[in-house]
Amino acid sequence: MTNLYAGIDIGGTSTKWMIVNSSGQIVADGHYDSQGNIVTKVEALAADLVSKYPHITGVGVICPGIVDENSGTVVYAANLELAGVPLADAVAHATKRPTFLGHDGRAAGLAEAVLGAGRGASSFIMMPIGTGISVALMLNGGLWSGQTFCAGEVGHAPIFLDGEECRCGQRGCLEVYASAKGIARRYARLSGHDIGAKAIEERLDDDLIARDVWTTAVAALAMSLAHLVLAVDPERIIIGGGLSHAGDTLLLPIQHHLDELLRWREAPPLVTAELGGAAGRWGAAILGCQASESTDYERWSV
Amino acid sequence: MTNLYAGIDIGGTSTKWMIVNSSGQIVADGHYDSQGNIVTKVEALAADLVSKYPHITGVGVICPGIVDENSGTVVYAANLELAGVPLADAVAHATKRPTFLGHDGRAAGLAEAVLGAGRGASSFIMMPIGTGISVALMLNGGLWSGQTFCAGEVGHAPIFLDGEECRCGQRGCLEVYASAKGIARRYARLSGHDIGAKAIEERLDDDLIARDVWTTAVAALAMSLAHLVLAVDPERIIIGGGLSHAGDTLLLPIQHHLDELLRWREAPPLVTAELGGAAGRWGAAILGCQASESTDYERWSV
Repeated sequence: MTNLYAGIDIGGTSTKWMIVNSSGQIVADGHYDSQGNIVTKVEALAADLVSKYPHITGVGVICPGIVDENSGTVVYAANLELAGVPLADAVAHATKRPTFLGHDGRAAGLAEAVLGAGRGASSFIMMPIGTGISVALMLNGGLWSGQTFCAGEVGHAPIFLDGEECRCGQRGCLEVYASAKGIARRYARLSGHDIGAKAIEERLDDDLIARDVWTTAVAALAMSLAHLVLAVDPERIIIGGGLSHAGDTLLLPIQHHLDELLRWREAPPLVTAELGGAAGRWGAAILGCQASESTDYERWSV
Repeated sequence: MTNLYAGIDIGGTSTKWMIVNSSGQIVADGHYDSQGNIVTKVEALAADLVSKYPHITGVGVICPGIVDENSGTVVYAANLELAGVPLADAVAHATKRPTFLGHDGRAAGLAEAVLGAGRGASSFIMMPIGTGISVALMLNGGLWSGQTFCAGEVGHAPIFLDGEECRCGQRGCLEVYASAKGIARRYARLSGHDIGAKAIEERLDDDLIARDVWTTAVAALAMSLAHLVLAVDPERIIIGGGLSHAGDTLLLPIQHHLDELLRWREAPPLVTAELGGAAGRWGAAILGCQASESTDYERWSV
């Protein structure tokens, strides 16, 4: 019987899990609402999975917020109402299996590195653009967490001095102009129609307000990416998140702006993330595999 | 007889060298003009040092530009008119001593990490502000070079969209507003007086133009540092270079702006570099020590 690995992705609204065998095939998966006591529910889920699939040899759990991967602690996760929770130990205790706790964004970066758009690159910046914006920094084959496990929060990087207000209390943040939410909000304010980023993207050909909002978003993204490329010099840029489904409508103008902003050096290639919403779960499963000291995941493909 | 280590810092105008013993005392030092064939001159210098000080067991050489530390190659250094030069091998051949080649900015970061303002920090951003602006990224105890050995070139990060022209061909770069040269140039344009950054700093109390230029420089620096802090989350920020001699006149307003721009998280502490213009040479000597597989440098202090 092959070894199995469990990956559990705790989100603000739902928790998704899957069990992967040593060849990387999904043996089972599921999800449930992230309501009530998160810790108790995850412990119960993990114990249940292990009792049904006793060949599970490692568990990976990921969640948003400030996650200390070294000690396996959720330092702070506002959406989950967790603070200072040693979640890796709790799940390890409930399952009697080695357990790694990861950060959802960095785990998605890990999954893209192993199975997706980051394959073969020893460094990349992955920027998921959805409700918010962040980056995962893959450097020397590892995801950089930051000194206080807060690396990657570029959604609140100041792009336009004294720009529009952000919910964080500052002005001119990247997210204000370039997240799916920010694009929708700016379009709604200018046009009076609250139609969402996807519909705005579909109107770019014949709606001047849509085009203006989109162009500003692209300019803001390019300014942030130029800053990051100059500082970090990655091999590749991976654009993920809901907005990345726009494909070339988003990527081509960003690449064009980036080339303009980096006249004296080549911009790294810009590619779309490949794993979509499944990146987190795959990252969690890889962490589960790593927790059991297996390198099986190196042979997986999606 | 104690082991000795040689450090050679090749600059655009002069090359500085020093020899350090295993306790970290400077045994000899000197400098000469960086004119003529750089490679031949460095080989001759290094051979001469080794013949005078046969107890030299390792050599560190540093230079500006694009430096591949892994292969010991100067990929490209415009100021030195070097491209594709395997300088570490050349010096090792001339001296019969193990030789490491380093990048001047990253070597200065290494020196601050071991002997200066970075002691005890496992991650920091060091930003030297002089004629130009760059950063050295210390992550997990090592200096990050970037995929193409171009990490840290934030002097050309776009700060103000469609801002003032930069010599690099872009507009609104950080250097345009915040380097010593940029500050002097902007003051000269606005006031008609070309007096240099140091004199401008001394006039902040009673010269409105000086204050305006300084304030814009501080705002630009804070915007870049906020971006980098959000992305990288370092333990500390070290400000170096000529402009750092302004001390609190520079650091306090940057810290204030940074706190304003990072309302939802604490800014890391901002400190001044400690080694000044000697940081490069010390970094080169540490590389020389490392080249000979010694950890003597861990006991040094300056």
